[in-house]
Amino acid sequence: MTDLFARHRRMLEDAVQALHARRFWTPFPEVPSGKIYGETAKLDGDAAYAALLGRGFVLPGHPEQRRLGTEVSPWGEALRITYPAADAPALIAAAQGAADALASAGVETRVGACLEILVRLNRISFLLGHATMHTTGQAFAMAFQAGGPHAQDRGLEAVAVAWAEMTRYADAARWEKPQGKAAALVIDKHWTLVPAGISLAIGCNTFPTWNSYPGIFASLATGNPVIVKPHPAAILPLALTVQVARGVLAEAGLPADAILLAVDEPGAEITKPLASDPAVRLIDYTGSSAFGAWLRENARQAQIFTEETGVNSVVIAAADDFDGMCANLAFSLSLYSGQMCTSPQNLYVPAQGIDTDQGHKSFDQVAAGLAQAIDTLLADPKQAAGICGAIANPATRDRVARARDQGRVVRDGTPLLLAVEADAPVAQDECFGPVAFLIPCADADDGIARAADLAAARGAITAALYDTDDARIRRAVAAFARAGVNLSVNLTGNIFVNQSAAFSDFHVTGANPAGNASLTDTAFVATRFRRVMWRRPAAAPA
Amino acid sequence: MTDLFARHRRMLEDAVQALHARRFWTPFPEVPSGKIYGETAKLDGDAAYAALLGRGFVLPGHPEQRRLGTEVSPWGEALRITYPAADAPALIAAAQGAADALASAGVETRVGACLEILVRLNRISFLLGHATMHTTGQAFAMAFQAGGPHAQDRGLEAVAVAWAEMTRYADAARWEKPQGKAAALVIDKHWTLVPAGISLAIGCNTFPTWNSYPGIFASLATGNPVIVKPHPAAILPLALTVQVARGVLAEAGLPADAILLAVDEPGAEITKPLASDPAVRLIDYTGSSAFGAWLRENARQAQIFTEETGVNSVVIAAADDFDGMCANLAFSLSLYSGQMCTSPQNLYVPAQGIDTDQGHKSFDQVAAGLAQAIDTLLADPKQAAGICGAIANPATRDRVARARDQGRVVRDGTPLLLAVEADAPVAQDECFGPVAFLIPCADADDGIARAADLAAARGAITAALYDTDDARIRRAVAAFARAGVNLSVNLTGNIFVNQSAAFSDFHVTGANPAGNASLTDTAFVATRFRRVMWRRPAAAPA
Repeated sequence: MTDLFARHRRMLEDAVQALHARRFWTPFPEVPSGKIYGETAKLDGDAAYAALLGRGFVLPGHPEQRRLGTEVSPWGEALRITYPAADAPALIAAAQGAADALASAGVETRVGACLEILVRLNRISFLLGHATMHTTGQAFAMAFQAGGPHAQDRGLEAVAVAWAEMTRYADAARWEKPQGKAAALVIDKHWTLVPAGISLAIGCNTFPTWNSYPGIFASLATGNPVIVKPHPAAILPLALTVQVARGVLAEAGLPADAILLAVDEPGAEITKPLASDPAVRLIDYTGSSAFGAWLRENARQAQIFTEETGVNSVVIAAADDFDGMCANLAFSLSLYSGQMCTSPQNLYVPAQGIDTDQGHKSFDQVAAGLAQAIDTLLADPKQAAGICGAIANPATRDRVARARDQGRVVRDGTPLLLAVEADAPVAQDECFGPVAFLIPCADADDGIARAADLAAARGAITAALYDTDDARIRRAVAAFARAGVNLSVNLTGNIFVNQSAAFSDFHVTGANPAGNASLTDTAFVATRFRRVMWRRPAAAPA
Repeated sequence: MTDLFARHRRMLEDAVQALHARRFWTPFPEVPSGKIYGETAKLDGDAAYAALLGRGFVLPGHPEQRRLGTEVSPWGEALRITYPAADAPALIAAAQGAADALASAGVETRVGACLEILVRLNRISFLLGHATMHTTGQAFAMAFQAGGPHAQDRGLEAVAVAWAEMTRYADAARWEKPQGKAAALVIDKHWTLVPAGISLAIGCNTFPTWNSYPGIFASLATGNPVIVKPHPAAILPLALTVQVARGVLAEAGLPADAILLAVDEPGAEITKPLASDPAVRLIDYTGSSAFGAWLRENARQAQIFTEETGVNSVVIAAADDFDGMCANLAFSLSLYSGQMCTSPQNLYVPAQGIDTDQGHKSFDQVAAGLAQAIDTLLADPKQAAGICGAIANPATRDRVARARDQGRVVRDGTPLLLAVEADAPVAQDECFGPVAFLIPCADADDGIARAADLAAARGAITAALYDTDDARIRRAVAAFARAGVNLSVNLTGNIFVNQSAAFSDFHVTGANPAGNASLTDTAFVATRFRRVMWRRPAAAPA
């Protein structure tokens, strides 16, 4: 059954080409427009979301021992959706039951099914937008993009990398070794792709689809049954994903149980028994380094792909467009209330101030310029809500409240701007949420060194630099490269350090403690399967 | 300095093509012939080896705190060579001193240097043959091949895979995102390859170069300084390698300390302090699973690539060429006295016997046929020495002596053939050395299941099957694939289950406990470096 593969082959080939070229490309439009998604798409999405609320979520044939689900929208409303739930042994058994059929299906069958799943998810992007909005607190426009097309891009990217790697080497070869005057030795060899085992995708609260799709699709494409374990506060986007995927798998003649939903509730998570089960050989995890460390200690039977805690920094060395810089940073700091793994946290500014197109600016003037830019950006309450969204998790609010006492308040509210000393404990670690620290440094090179050292020691996913000195920019490029962190220089206008585009930006480098997995490089897929050969002498030549 | 790259570019491209096609290819002839290596090559090699004995080995500029070396040839002679030795901190410091220059050298510079190193090693293959013979106990012809051209092939293969992966994605791109009627967003992106850190190659006694070259060359090509830690009984082949490599690196303008020799003595190994040093981020290891487990527990800061213990099996289900089968197995069991990670150990034979081209053969008749074939093969003492070589390590002799009591002797001597029951403890684990166990099974499918189960549980690098039933062969192919072990079917004549050819056979699958690394697949190189980006808005279009 490879007609799904044939149907989507062109998209796959374009995706492979795109990821080699690293230029802009996407088959999944990010604009939530009726002209693209169909005139009724928005209303259909509204209605579909409304129809889910207060009901039992339907996953035909899925293991079910009870129903669980206590999601409450950060925007206020309880979702009152219950999901089929089963304990770890039941989910493992179901995944094992699907393993052989998934492994022995051809590469094209699996890849074709993955591509069809992504295309069908794209069609319900409005529904996924609502589901993401009401589990993460993102405003709708962002939830549509990050929960829908941008996540689908990342899923497709993983399928494309997996496809490229699975087909990289010949799957059969005749090996003829010359023997001087004697007849050549002739051996026929055949290689089979053998999947690693059961794959566990541990989702996060803030980007349930975007952060989970790469692992889910990389594992599924390479033949590993996937147990999807959503954050208990953000189940719906992944439940919809599993629902669509199971439907496509069944239509493609593959076992629906090749993808399963592991639902639990806060305080009664089943992540640990799942992760430490000997049958689980792959774990994709997004979350705190504390739980990452638990996984490394307790799930040693598995390969673990992580995105973890980090401290993202901005070094403000000089500005040839001070207002543009402040406006750009104001947006980066405000977007989704700093609840992005790519949000800046530490802003290093020379204590003596900086040179700008508006003349010299003191440390306090830089701070005031940033605060003013945020005030301007968020002056309109409706626009502010559209940018900041809502806080996904009460713990985030508490964390920021605790941080507030540890510095001088430069701007109160969301986002909070605090001036702190470079060695302040609060600035040495991730303080996830709407807070940033303005930190005086001796000079720009000192700021670069501090930011890079912190990235190397504590992890970082993004770094930004504003500067006008080419030689210093080169030094910063080298320093952040050594620290394994992607650097954005002099961003103004409508492109932000937080943004990471599939097929072009590798998300997380894997080269510092913020994660060992890079979305989506070859290493992310290469060990999800192995090549096993059988060989025998060729029939004697006629 | 990329003229080395230009000089060898054609060979590199041919290598990349070969590893994709998996057909026979090598640039390094395996025949120790003067016609190929030069009329005086043999005499030059003899003389060069003689000149090394009893002297201090020269490694200009290498860290040296003392001189060590107690190698004794398994053929009898003490080498009396001393090598410059330094403790772990000194070696780590020297490697760190070389790291930046190696990392910032271009890919072509590093790859060009690696290729030149391999070509120069090829030129001294006769010397490497002597060095390998007198540290491993291999007979000269095998030592020449395995220590010389075959090892060089594996090194080149690693360089080719590393090159392919390092150049797989664009290193710069202009990303232009359409913005409807507004001007497109245009960002210029640049990617730098960032090496993982210091690499440690832990060599083994039996194949010091063949097993170590892939890790050494994969790490060096991807920019990681390599500390080469030979087995204390097999230093010389790797010391020669380091000597050649340091010379080429210096000529290429790279730091000689990008490759270092870590010499120690039996009972005073420095492997543990090296492996557990925080700066060591890559470890390539060939050896026992016991020490592999130590590394996993104590070198958790490093990625660990291993080849470990396993139990290789042969299932004798039926034979359409009984004499050919026995002769083939006799050679496989005798070659280098079973001291190969690919040597068969457990031979499963149906208790009721098998069908052959010579009629039905009972279990005992199969056993006698094998014993007779070995006797014939090794009847001539000179030929026997050329095949069996010498025992590398006294522990191997002791191990086989202990095994002798645990079964019924079918053939005494080297190799020893014992008949044991399927559940005999001695047959459940690797018994490294010249011994094989003839094991009665209920029928051929039972033998296949036992062999595959043992491979999955205890590891295996090779499996072999003799059978005439196509359906059963298919079942065996599937069973051994699930167990992650490469299978050879019906080998007779001059091709043996022990043999693993670079550019065609992936050596070790990584899919069972016999090792997590496959020589040489993409996963072997993909995490030895990371991609780090910097990006900035493109200059406004004119």
